[in-house]
Order: sequence, then structure tokens, then C-alpha cells
Amino acid sequence: MGSVSESSSSKTASLDKLLHMFGFEIEEVSPKRLTGHLKVTDKCCQRWKVLHGGIVALIAESLASMGAHMASGFRRIAGIELSINHLAEAHLGDVVMADAAPVNLGRTLQVWRVQLWKINPSAPESTKVLISTSNVSIISNLPIPVNVKNAAVPLMKYAKL
Amino acid sequence: MGSVSESSSSKTASLDKLLHMFGFEIEEVSPKRLTGHLKVTDKCCQRWKVLHGGIVALIAESLASMGAHMASGFRRIAGIELSINHLAEAHLGDVVMADAAPVNLGRTLQVWRVQLWKINPSAPESTKVLISTSNVSIISNLPIPVNVKNAAVPLMKYAKL
Amino acid sequence: MGSVSESSSSKTASLDKLLHMFGFEIEEVSPKRLTGHLKVTDKCCQRWKVLHGGIVALIAESLASMGAHMASGFRRIAGIELSINHLAEAHLGDVVMADAAPVNLGRTLQVWRVQLWKINPSAPESTKVLISTSNVSIISNLPIPVNVKNAAVPLMKYAKL
Amino acid sequence: MGSVSESSSSKTASLDKLLHMFGFEIEEVSPKRLTGHLKVTDKCCQRWKVLHGGIVALIAESLASMGAHMASGFRRIAGIELSINHLAEAHLGDVVMADAAPVNLGRTLQVWRVQLWKINPSAPESTKVLISTSNVSIISNLPIPVNVKNAAVPLMKYAKL
Repeated sequence: MGSVSESSSSKTASLDKLLHMFGFEIEEVSPKRLTGHLKVTDKCCQRWKVLHGGIVALIAESLASMGAHMASGFRRIAGIELSINHLAEAHLGDVVMADAAPVNLGRTLQVWRVQLWKINPSAPESTKVLISTSNVSIISNLPIPVNVKNAAVPLMKYAKL
Repeated sequence: MGSVSESSSSKTASLDKLLHMFGFEIEEVSPKRLTGHLKVTDKCCQRWKVLHGGIVALIAESLASMGAHMASGFRRIAGIELSINHLAEAHLGDVVMADAAPVNLGRTLQVWRVQLWKINPSAPESTKVLISTSNVSIISNLPIPVNVKNAAVPLMKYAKL
Repeated sequence: MGSVSESSSSKTASLDKLLHMFGFEIEEVSPKRLTGHLKVTDKCCQRWKVLHGGIVALIAESLASMGAHMASGFRRIAGIELSINHLAEAHLGDVVMADAAPVNLGRTLQVWRVQLWKINPSAPESTKVLISTSNVSIISNLPIPVNVKNAAVPLMKYAKL
Repeated sequence: MGSVSESSSSKTASLDKLLHMFGFEIEEVSPKRLTGHLKVTDKCCQRWKVLHGGIVALIAESLASMGAHMASGFRRIAGIELSINHLAEAHLGDVVMADAAPVNLGRTLQVWRVQLWKINPSAPESTKVLISTSNVSIISNLPIPVNVKNAAVPLMKYAKL
């Protein structure tokens, strides 16, 4: 996965520094779907060596927010509600895949669903286990503040529109 | 705030390394209430220089999880559901206060509410603005795995029981 | 409670026919707070003679919706998200009290919290038990459709503004 | 749809009297999937002649609860959390289809997703519009109370196991 991985790492650094800080690597980036993966390191775990629920939420908010930003035509957006069901635990050393897709793309309101699976890299993909499902509600018709008018530039660079 | 702040910083480092990483400082720690505060730095912001929704979720999951762990008599607990309403934005430089308290303490299921306010440090406290309210559902009768049996030690040290 | 109850019954019939159908009686009606109560009859129960979760949701949606309608100055509103935590069961014969209040009254978005308690009518009020807490997110700047322009009339009649 | 409809109406009456009261007709009933439909009548609407959010919640709670009851081997179950995203409005006269399926079937905790679409009966099915998505969290290892030990009988009669 060498060079692919390096490229997705620098892409993540430029798109979302918080995801990058935890080792998450963004892959697909489009207004209809975002994907990525994370190796669960000690940095991402709570006291029982299990992926921290806050990291799950961070991935959900970040991917949904990028998706809604693209789908709104790069207007400013703001998350207003997040609901997460935690279904299974991912442990230190597991690899977690993430997938974000719109449930509904209204002009004022978008809802995105972000799902996480843990996979066994040495087993067929059919063995992946759903570990969480999140719904993120986002308001999408906010004006862009003048002082951060370049906020969309990295996403415009990497998005497949 | 010098020495108080230093002490709450080292307490946070020992209780929750993720909260500590973002500069959050835990204050009160008891089975009935946890509090703390965060100065919003660049590290905690999304592309519009606003406190990242994932950090709000991280604070909610971390404080509720510590509270439920204490309230269950230090049994193992696991978050199963998180619902957040984001109500207002906190900006770079704002100070955010957090407060976690139980809504319901059942034997099997606990629900904790975590609320965040932004405050103007130079104004009376009455000017604080509620920025989010989170409900965290936690299952509280799980066995403690052998390999992490010391997980409760830091919390036992700091908790006011 | 005779005459008070009759008056709150006819008020409920005019304000919300679904609540009325299940015997719910609306008491206080204002843009800052709505209250009411329900005797749990067989009609409101699921197969285990316990108050049906759908009735809890119906009460939450109805009270929050009336509140948001008033608080928006009688503009058209629409619920976009509902999160309920069911905390304890109410049984056939119990009396349930409901209380709805705003968490946040934004121009575009309102969030209301609706809480239900069961009470023992022959015991002091301090014995009431919280059975559910609901957060209802409501968008509040929709145009009023021409064909239902009288929708606000009953609420205008009973509201304490 | 004559005789099919009559049969699904009497099935609904025996399985869930609240759903039956609003004209909902249950079709498929199995531990892996439940479906049904509802003609939106005046009885189901709020003041703007739109399907009441409480009815959406009632359908979600009822179908998920039946499904979890079957999937747990007819043990007693209890809903603990419900999150609904309302995505589009169904109006008086619309026909609404419902579909409930498990997201996760744990021994202690089940999560079911219930989705509603509005359909145009005179158009191809591809024109259906998603109007809501609900996640229902259910605890599934409760003892069955003696006084309602026949609660499972109707469901056992109609379930395809």
C-alpha cells in the first residue's frame, strides 16, 4: 500500500488536520461519498484499549462535514445534530474502514450517514463487522465569513466533482 | 489561575489523555458530577475557525464515561448511543465550560447529559451561552477484562466518592 | 380536579386531536413552557401493559411543535429530528406528567426538551420518577401554505403570550 | 388489493392495536424484516395536513419492537432510545411504505432501522421518496412478567420464523 498510503496521508493532512493527527487516511472524496481508514493505535483508545467513542464521532463529523460542504456547492455549512449508535468495539491494532454517504440532500438541510467497520486485513472482506452508524444533520445555507474565505481551497483541490 | 490550572492539567493527563491532548482541564470528578474547561485553540477548530463538532463529542464521551465508570462502582462500562444538539458556535479564543451529570443511573443502563457553554472571561457568568447538549447512553454491567484490570486506578485516585 | 380537567380536555381537543384521542390533557400553553398529564389507559399501552414508546414520542412531537409554533411568532415550523431516551416504564393506571421547554430558540432552528414523569397521586410530588427525556429539533422559518392558513387559530386562542 | 388488504388489516389489529387504529397495515413479519403501509388520513395529520411526526415515531417503535421480540426468541424487550430524522413531508392522501430491519442483533442490545417512503400509487416504484429514517435501540434480555405471559401469542401466530 506504500505510495498510495503516503498520498492519502498528505491528502488527509491538508483536508482535516484532526483526522490526520489520529492517523486516519482519507481515500475517496466526492459530494456523493467519502471513504477512508484508520489503524487503531494507542492514541485513539480509551482506558480499556478500545477505540474511543469520541474518535468515532470525530470521523463522523469530519467526513459528513466535508461531504455536505461539497454537496452544497462549497457554501458554508454547520452540523446541528449527531446521533451515533455504537454497535461493537474495535481494539488496539484493528483496522477500521469508514464510509460516508448522503441520506438526504435538501437545500437547507442535509443528513449524512457515516458507518465504520473493523476488518481483518488477512481475511476476506466479507468478514468485516459494522462497529458504528452515525447520522449527522447539517444546515447548508450559511454565508461564508470573510476571514475564512479560503476554507474551501483544499477540498476543491482533492474533490472528484 | 496558575497553580490550580497546572494541577488540573496533570490530573487530566492521568485521567484522559485525549482530553489532555486538546488542552481540556478536568476540575470536579465525582459519580454525580464532572466539570472542566477548554480554551479553544487552533488545534480544536475546523476549517472555519470554529470548535470542531468532534471535539464536542470527545468531551461528552469522555466525561460521561468517567462518570458512569464511577457510578457503577468501577465496573466496566461501554457507551452505546450518543446524541448531540449543536446550538451555537464557539470560536478560536473562546473559553468553553463543560458539565456532566447523570440523567438516570440504572443498574444496566445509565444516561448522562453533558452540556457545554462558552463564557466571556471578562464578563459576569450570567453571560454564558449554551453551545451544545449531549445525551450519552452507557451499559454498565460488563465484566472487566483481565489485561486492563488497572484501568480504574487513575480515576480512583482523583474521584471524590 | 373536576372542572379544571373538563376545561383542559376541551382545550386539548381543539389544540391537538391526536393527544386528545389518547386522553392527554394540556394545561399550560406558552412560548416558554407547555405542560399536561395523561392517565395511562389500555389504549396507550403495548403488549406488556406498559406505556407505548410511540405515545411518548407523540407527546414530545406535539408539545414541542406547539411551543415552537408560538415561539416563532406563529410561522410555519417543521420537526427535523427527535431523540428520545426511555428511562423507566409507566404502567397501566399510572399518571404521567409532561413538561416541554426550549433548550435553544434560534431564528432558523429551535431545540425543545420534553420530559415525562410518572407520579403517585397519593404520594408527595417528590416521589415522581423521570420516565423519558426527548430533544426535538425544529426548523422555524418556513412559509405558511395558503390552504392551511387558519392552522394557528386554536393555538392563538389558548396561548399565554 | 381487496382480500390481501383485509387480511393484513386483521393481522395488524391482532399484532398492534395502535398501528391498526391509524389504518396502518402490516405485511411481512419476520425476525429479519417487517414491512407495511399506511394511507395518510386526516386522523394521522398535524395542523398543516402533514403526517404527524408522532405517527412516524409510533410506526418505528412498533415495528422495531415486534422485530426485536422475534429476534430475541420471544424474550421480553424494551426500547431505550429512538432517533428519528424527518427528511420530507407526507401529505393527506399520500401512501406511505414502511420497512424495518436490524442494524445489529446483539444478545443484550439490538438496533433496528425503520425507514418510511411516500409513493405515488400511479407511478413506477422508482419514484418513491424517503421521508424518515429512525434508529431504535432495544434491550433484549429482560424477564417476562407473569401477568402478561401471553403477550407473544399473536406474534408467534403471524411470524415467518
